[in-house]
Amino acid sequence: DSSAYYDCDMTGPTAIVMGTEATGLTEPWRQAADAHVLIPMLGRLDSLNVSVSAAILLYEAVRQRQ
Amino acid sequence: DSSAYYDCDMTGPTAIVMGTEATGLTEPWRQAADAHVLIPMLGRLDSLNVSVSAAILLYEAVRQRQ
Repeated sequence: DSSAYYDCDMTGPTAIVMGTEATGLTEPWRQAADAHVLIPMLGRLDSLNVSVSAAILLYEAVRQRQ
Repeated sequence: DSSAYYDCDMTGPTAIVMGTEATGLTEPWRQAADAHVLIPMLGRLDSLNVSVSAAILLYEAVRQRQ
């Protein structure tokens, strides 16, 4: 039920909640969310660390607000 | 002479060359470049590390290619 993060409108007030690499967010967080987004992974990379993932999401919000 | 990275067309073949936090790229790299881009900094943050900066640029290229 997730879409790519760049298809999510982040121009309004937005809270981004990051899950763990292994298991993601717990169910209460998932149920409270207005949207579930993912960062598409290309190639054979396993996962991005949370600082890198957060930066990608936050700068997409910045880009959308220009 | 730099523009925001999200205003740079990265839909074609693209090489991204990252500079150091303190002094950026050396002059030969700057002169060889088709474009000079920057990541806008908000608030009082000093700088982003190179892995975070590279991820932001690479995922903008991914986004533009969807």
